[in-house]
Amino acid sequence: MAESDKDLEGNDALWGGRFEEHPDEATQRFGASLPVDRRMWKQDIKASQAHARMLGAQGVLDGADVDAIVAGLDAVGETIAAGTFAWNIDDEDIHMSVESQLTRDIGEAGGRLHTGRSRNDQVATDTRLYMKDRTIDLVAGVIGLQGALMNVADAHFGVVMPGYTHMQRAQPVLFSHHMMAYFWMLSRDFKRLVAAYDAADASPLGSAALAGTTYPLDRQASAADMGFSGVIANSMDAVSDRDFLLDLDYACSVCMIHLSRMCEELILWSTGEFGFITLSDAYSTGSSIMPQKKNPDFAELVRGKTGRVVGDLVQLLMTMKSLPLAYNKDMQEDKEGVFDAVDTLEACLACVSGMVSTMRVNADRMRAAAEGGFMAATDLADYLVGKGIPFRKAHEIVGELVLACEKQGRTLQSLTAAELAAHCPEFGSDATNAVDIDKIVARRTTEGGTGHEAVKAQMEQGRSALAGEAAWLSSKE
Amino acid sequence: MAESDKDLEGNDALWGGRFEEHPDEATQRFGASLPVDRRMWKQDIKASQAHARMLGAQGVLDGADVDAIVAGLDAVGETIAAGTFAWNIDDEDIHMSVESQLTRDIGEAGGRLHTGRSRNDQVATDTRLYMKDRTIDLVAGVIGLQGALMNVADAHFGVVMPGYTHMQRAQPVLFSHHMMAYFWMLSRDFKRLVAAYDAADASPLGSAALAGTTYPLDRQASAADMGFSGVIANSMDAVSDRDFLLDLDYACSVCMIHLSRMCEELILWSTGEFGFITLSDAYSTGSSIMPQKKNPDFAELVRGKTGRVVGDLVQLLMTMKSLPLAYNKDMQEDKEGVFDAVDTLEACLACVSGMVSTMRVNADRMRAAAEGGFMAATDLADYLVGKGIPFRKAHEIVGELVLACEKQGRTLQSLTAAELAAHCPEFGSDATNAVDIDKIVARRTTEGGTGHEAVKAQMEQGRSALAGEAAWLSSKE
Amino acid sequence: MAESDKDLEGNDALWGGRFEEHPDEATQRFGASLPVDRRMWKQDIKASQAHARMLGAQGVLDGADVDAIVAGLDAVGETIAAGTFAWNIDDEDIHMSVESQLTRDIGEAGGRLHTGRSRNDQVATDTRLYMKDRTIDLVAGVIGLQGALMNVADAHFGVVMPGYTHMQRAQPVLFSHHMMAYFWMLSRDFKRLVAAYDAADASPLGSAALAGTTYPLDRQASAADMGFSGVIANSMDAVSDRDFLLDLDYACSVCMIHLSRMCEELILWSTGEFGFITLSDAYSTGSSIMPQKKNPDFAELVRGKTGRVVGDLVQLLMTMKSLPLAYNKDMQEDKEGVFDAVDTLEACLACVSGMVSTMRVNADRMRAAAEGGFMAATDLADYLVGKGIPFRKAHEIVGELVLACEKQGRTLQSLTAAELAAHCPEFGSDATNAVDIDKIVARRTTEGGTGHEAVKAQMEQGRSALAGEAAWLSSKE
Amino acid sequence: MAESDKDLEGNDALWGGRFEEHPDEATQRFGASLPVDRRMWKQDIKASQAHARMLGAQGVLDGADVDAIVAGLDAVGETIAAGTFAWNIDDEDIHMSVESQLTRDIGEAGGRLHTGRSRNDQVATDTRLYMKDRTIDLVAGVIGLQGALMNVADAHFGVVMPGYTHMQRAQPVLFSHHMMAYFWMLSRDFKRLVAAYDAADASPLGSAALAGTTYPLDRQASAADMGFSGVIANSMDAVSDRDFLLDLDYACSVCMIHLSRMCEELILWSTGEFGFITLSDAYSTGSSIMPQKKNPDFAELVRGKTGRVVGDLVQLLMTMKSLPLAYNKDMQEDKEGVFDAVDTLEACLACVSGMVSTMRVNADRMRAAAEGGFMAATDLADYLVGKGIPFRKAHEIVGELVLACEKQGRTLQSLTAAELAAHCPEFGSDATNAVDIDKIVARRTTEGGTGHEAVKAQMEQGRSALAGEAAWLSSKE
Repeated sequence: MAESDKDLEGNDALWGGRFEEHPDEATQRFGASLPVDRRMWKQDIKASQAHARMLGAQGVLDGADVDAIVAGLDAVGETIAAGTFAWNIDDEDIHMSVESQLTRDIGEAGGRLHTGRSRNDQVATDTRLYMKDRTIDLVAGVIGLQGALMNVADAHFGVVMPGYTHMQRAQPVLFSHHMMAYFWMLSRDFKRLVAAYDAADASPLGSAALAGTTYPLDRQASAADMGFSGVIANSMDAVSDRDFLLDLDYACSVCMIHLSRMCEELILWSTGEFGFITLSDAYSTGSSIMPQKKNPDFAELVRGKTGRVVGDLVQLLMTMKSLPLAYNKDMQEDKEGVFDAVDTLEACLACVSGMVSTMRVNADRMRAAAEGGFMAATDLADYLVGKGIPFRKAHEIVGELVLACEKQGRTLQSLTAAELAAHCPEFGSDATNAVDIDKIVARRTTEGGTGHEAVKAQMEQGRSALAGEAAWLSSKE
Repeated sequence: MAESDKDLEGNDALWGGRFEEHPDEATQRFGASLPVDRRMWKQDIKASQAHARMLGAQGVLDGADVDAIVAGLDAVGETIAAGTFAWNIDDEDIHMSVESQLTRDIGEAGGRLHTGRSRNDQVATDTRLYMKDRTIDLVAGVIGLQGALMNVADAHFGVVMPGYTHMQRAQPVLFSHHMMAYFWMLSRDFKRLVAAYDAADASPLGSAALAGTTYPLDRQASAADMGFSGVIANSMDAVSDRDFLLDLDYACSVCMIHLSRMCEELILWSTGEFGFITLSDAYSTGSSIMPQKKNPDFAELVRGKTGRVVGDLVQLLMTMKSLPLAYNKDMQEDKEGVFDAVDTLEACLACVSGMVSTMRVNADRMRAAAEGGFMAATDLADYLVGKGIPFRKAHEIVGELVLACEKQGRTLQSLTAAELAAHCPEFGSDATNAVDIDKIVARRTTEGGTGHEAVKAQMEQGRSALAGEAAWLSSKE
Repeated sequence: MAESDKDLEGNDALWGGRFEEHPDEATQRFGASLPVDRRMWKQDIKASQAHARMLGAQGVLDGADVDAIVAGLDAVGETIAAGTFAWNIDDEDIHMSVESQLTRDIGEAGGRLHTGRSRNDQVATDTRLYMKDRTIDLVAGVIGLQGALMNVADAHFGVVMPGYTHMQRAQPVLFSHHMMAYFWMLSRDFKRLVAAYDAADASPLGSAALAGTTYPLDRQASAADMGFSGVIANSMDAVSDRDFLLDLDYACSVCMIHLSRMCEELILWSTGEFGFITLSDAYSTGSSIMPQKKNPDFAELVRGKTGRVVGDLVQLLMTMKSLPLAYNKDMQEDKEGVFDAVDTLEACLACVSGMVSTMRVNADRMRAAAEGGFMAATDLADYLVGKGIPFRKAHEIVGELVLACEKQGRTLQSLTAAELAAHCPEFGSDATNAVDIDKIVARRTTEGGTGHEAVKAQMEQGRSALAGEAAWLSSKE
Repeated sequence: MAESDKDLEGNDALWGGRFEEHPDEATQRFGASLPVDRRMWKQDIKASQAHARMLGAQGVLDGADVDAIVAGLDAVGETIAAGTFAWNIDDEDIHMSVESQLTRDIGEAGGRLHTGRSRNDQVATDTRLYMKDRTIDLVAGVIGLQGALMNVADAHFGVVMPGYTHMQRAQPVLFSHHMMAYFWMLSRDFKRLVAAYDAADASPLGSAALAGTTYPLDRQASAADMGFSGVIANSMDAVSDRDFLLDLDYACSVCMIHLSRMCEELILWSTGEFGFITLSDAYSTGSSIMPQKKNPDFAELVRGKTGRVVGDLVQLLMTMKSLPLAYNKDMQEDKEGVFDAVDTLEACLACVSGMVSTMRVNADRMRAAAEGGFMAATDLADYLVGKGIPFRKAHEIVGELVLACEKQGRTLQSLTAAELAAHCPEFGSDATNAVDIDKIVARRTTEGGTGHEAVKAQMEQGRSALAGEAAWLSSKE
């Protein structure tokens, strides 16, 4: 048997004669991580099996022990999956829970599994495996929402809405262009998630308590068995590094910020005042008393959950601050917040995908708003510039026109060519083109701009990006 | 029946013909708060009973209905307390859970309970009641830890240890003085908790959805019945204010900061290098392999949990940012973090009290450290100043003495009067007083300083403060 | 001369022969706090004068020295106020800057000022004095905004607007009621600021480096001279406590949250879609190109600055985490963030007061919105209940009516009594009262509700609260 | 002249007749970003020159104008560099400052520079260019510290110290191994910085206010001219994306967490109790009064500054939460915090590099500590296991031995072979090898472990990683 910081048989046996008192139940419960970490049982079993196989290959364990351990762990996994496993808070954590049961099931060989490892490297290994799996789930969720946005952009191509700056109507844009802005945010989220995945993708196993061990371990072999791309280069770093969790917390936080922006707009657009979209009943709630009420509850919830994910990030940053090397118990606080961040983001991505996919787009309300607010004024002035009038003069002429329209409650689009010419003789018969909302949009031909052709090209680029993301995903699943 | 934003009989009945689709199960689960808010069942029942009695007194409900409701709610509470209540996620939250069961139990009268109220004011009321109760628990925990510190300060009065600045030994202090520094931090925590209590102590009930109701409610009466000191002055503020939760989160955060500082010192003092204290086995863990290991796990855990409580505060601040009036669903995210903060602080206070009460104080190690580090140099220089030597010269003389001692591996305390005189003739036979650690401490007679008499006076002041806190507590329990 | 942790004459003289190397300029600049803390020069001078007078009274300094010091400090203050003071980064901080100059000006007596104190208690004293002063400024700002809100509520009493939950129109409310909701938030901010003031209001002076001193100081006397209500009970706590800064950061953070909510609404209401208010040109910016643009820049900036104040709070919480007693240099990072928080909040309060005071309230747009959205449906159903129809049936009848109106593009208010009666014979000639927006508002008579009389009573209560706040303020100024 | 959201000639000219009032000076100052953003003047000039050249190539501007603009901007840059530029708060921001001066200098051509762009895309472009430059500075700082750590690891190869878990001595490790743990943390920081660089490395220029423009811009050309790798795909995303700043804030935050851990250890190791290192006088401060004091001020400051950088991250996350598309003025708050984070990290990296490079390593104190604490117990038990004794029995035997040594104040290393054999006959003459600290270290041969050969291999791997980082850096400089 080999060095390890902690062992499996309970405190009395574990710590020998030095300890005369034991924690009372409340204290023990305070110290236990089992309620939090037991969700990593699959990863714990996978890591133990890889460790056992490696110990066998290196001649530390004999083949019979390895077989017994691997099969025994499979059996433990089955009882956990079946919900029949007898969890016991005395086992403190998932590692002890699995190992105790294994030893009860297969006898002494179970005890030999812990050769050349420690809970310090074990928990780091399990957590990395778990986070790799969950990051894949999140990537799938991101891709799902990107697909939903792309579909909506496709289905409503040509719909024009006001583009806003400072929440004031600025220039008309394609609704599809607006949707694609979110698509690209999510592409950056994909990259951050991949970075978090890569950060998790190195094996700490074999670092033991902090210094490596005296056993002839083959860390590369167990790493490969578990699907890691490599091993962590320094054993002290291996047991005390939690950057990969910070990276994931951070990736989740920024994605939640993006969802909060999108949900803010969905909420705004669902108001009586905007009325740009109607959320599906399945993503709304009502009131038994006020029949007029239809509340965008789920969009609000997603927006509200942004804080908790950022709170999870702050929590871990603060916990890690000023911790000396190597392992400190503070680090037990590393997982709960990240689990929460991952669970929250996964649920929010699914919820927003559903909302976006099922919402009704009220193209008429969008167009009416786009024709209000005098958003064509810029193009009308540009028209006059084209006729040789200096911009400043053109600006003044159009300004007066806007003022006149405002007083009469008219839009620029409602003016006839004759009325325009009456206001300023340089307005020719083609001047109504200048205020045509569709043409204003179409004229913005810059790469990445809102012109129809530019948006089509952008969407093509988006499809290609999405295909690349999907390829990454299928390479990992 | 009266206006209310939400009702109790399930979506179909609730929202009428306007809604054609309903959330799928995952979405519904995403939206439900029941798993989080059901811990407020006692407060929900208390608030409903007060509401019913007030409606009776105002003639809105008849006496038979009121009696049936009050008794029915007692019965519901008994099944919850007994663990036999049938929770159903379709009920969404604790309010619906209780009210649905009540109506199943007592029939139509149950439905009339919701007259003149809304879930918007109901959840605010329950949460305030709950937080008042929990704040009392936290105050008890704070007072408990203060008592433990006072006891330790008493039990070890006279023990001298190094006082540190920059983690360098600076001047000797009484261990009791050091303990009392934490005592006073906790007195400030008491004040912040009382402020949070007072912030929660006003009734929103009767604000209904956001605007008040058309029923002749007596808000003062229901407030008094529930034990609130008054009512919230504005109905829109009443349903959208979450300051009282921020105040509690904040009070918990600062108290955790204090505990993190104390635990940092307990951990430091438990190192082989310091050795000032020995934590009880009950608050330590060991290693099955390394018999020398005794880890201050629980102090580390408390330190590590500081981040999560501050994370809870950040979460709620971020959630509340930029929310327009009045109620928004984002606010459903208000409770989980505060519950976590309160639970965490309560457990940590108990844990640290236990640690402090059971630790062994190694007075010898403290004294040895206090005599090392040349902390008497200042007083030795002051001695020479008293003999008429200018401070700068005295500083130089003592500096040389320190250097000589350092080279010979001696402490200032080990020098004889003769050796001192040999170094500088102004050192008289009383010069050894100047380096006597106990006398150095005793000389610091300033109010609030570390001199024995000053610390005794401080502890008397502390006892009086503690009595005041206890009086507050017993007035609330 | 007495003990002190640091002295005034520069490193060479200060630290004697033990130090052979000195920081290079970049490192020294990195360590210096002067650029940040020099704004506390008035407080530094005030504290030094009080200290000198106390030393005189206690016989530690003679009267001539005290007079020279007090007058000399006045002279230093005058040069700083005049902008002619020669700041020197070598002086590291404001304390050294003032003291060096004093000693250059008045000679040896200047050196004696530092008797019985240390920079550790000095910086704590100055900071507390400074924050007391600035908190008073903030309270004035809060009261100013409350006054502005009260004025607006007064000036537009009777204007009806939609009350929102979930950003959906829920029930009509008085605009004054809505304004008063913010008024009360600010009353809570006042309380938090007073709590921060009280937390700062105790003198650390006399605690010296950490342990008190051997000089016969009268801490109560110097505390009273500086205007403190008392002294801090424990010298180690005195030099290491930064709770009073956290309390102020926190008070600022919550107030900024409130302003962010108000500004979110001002921005929303300024959109073309809502149009409830028109911000003054003085609080708007435009575009040279798009004549239609009028942006609520300042409201956006205030909303955007919320993050920085909360960031300041997080910064200090994180800095204080796990710091052992007593003073650590980390604490030098305590001031910059709080200065930023205080400056930001003060500017934002003034900006929002100006915005609110000068905005135009578009009562017609508000009323039109209040008549849209079928917000009268509840009261119409209640009318039928009053005629003996069960609520559920009434709800159904009104629901059908809403649907019919929606299809015809009509509001409930546009229906004649005859049309109502045609829909359901129980609608009598008084049924139009039920949909009258003003009457709907008026019916909500609950204390704290939106009914006209209730709001008047609430405003009376508000005026009284404001008078109480103003009394506190004038007692401090 | 073309569309733009803002223009250069001051409010009166800019916003025409619609605006009747203007901000007072305080409000204008509140809104101005010039004091913050003027540090980006080089980037602003670079971007404007690229824009002008592109407009020339596209035939929008004629060659003479382009030449005048490019030369004029160079001249403006020279006056700024020389410190003779006349900054004016009325110019609001760096863009207006540069452009106003240019137009004063070269006349009308200056006005034509703003063709087809807006301040919305301009500020995004400048900020990205600036952050790319500063990220390169940070990478250089990271590499510098890694080099310092590698040098220290090299210079003290073979020095043994205690490895800690839970701050308790666990197993002896090479000091070089401990240093390398930090080396690898910094390698991850390098990766995060590169990710932030890549996130910034795409051009928003040409997105104009939010929708693209009607001018025939070649965005790829101006992007290439400025050294961007590509262009942002969506114009609305281009003006509202601040992810690249979050990424940089985050990279800085994690790096500061790493530095806080390193500084915590430097502070601990500098205590009288540990005494493992002696910081250079150049990175220490002392006391004029207490000659024994030598404070690790700079390590404390770095540790203390961790909070501010994390605060900067929280600030920006909170600011971005829930912002609708596209540009909102809140985003003006994006830069100050990131500037602070970058400046802070840069200074801290330099400071820690200096500290590490100049500290004295007290190998004797480290070894003495490594021989204390019975850290050889594990290997002694393993020795007995090798002799055929079951581990549990071996553990007991060694446990008793430890206890005996503890009572006699002896270390395991002080025992002779005979004494060992007397305790247990299985201890042969080679048993003293088992407790030899150097041999214990050497036996940990696992890849990544602390054995001498393993650490040498690790350092080789580190050198190779460092070379790769340096190659990236030189490719960018």
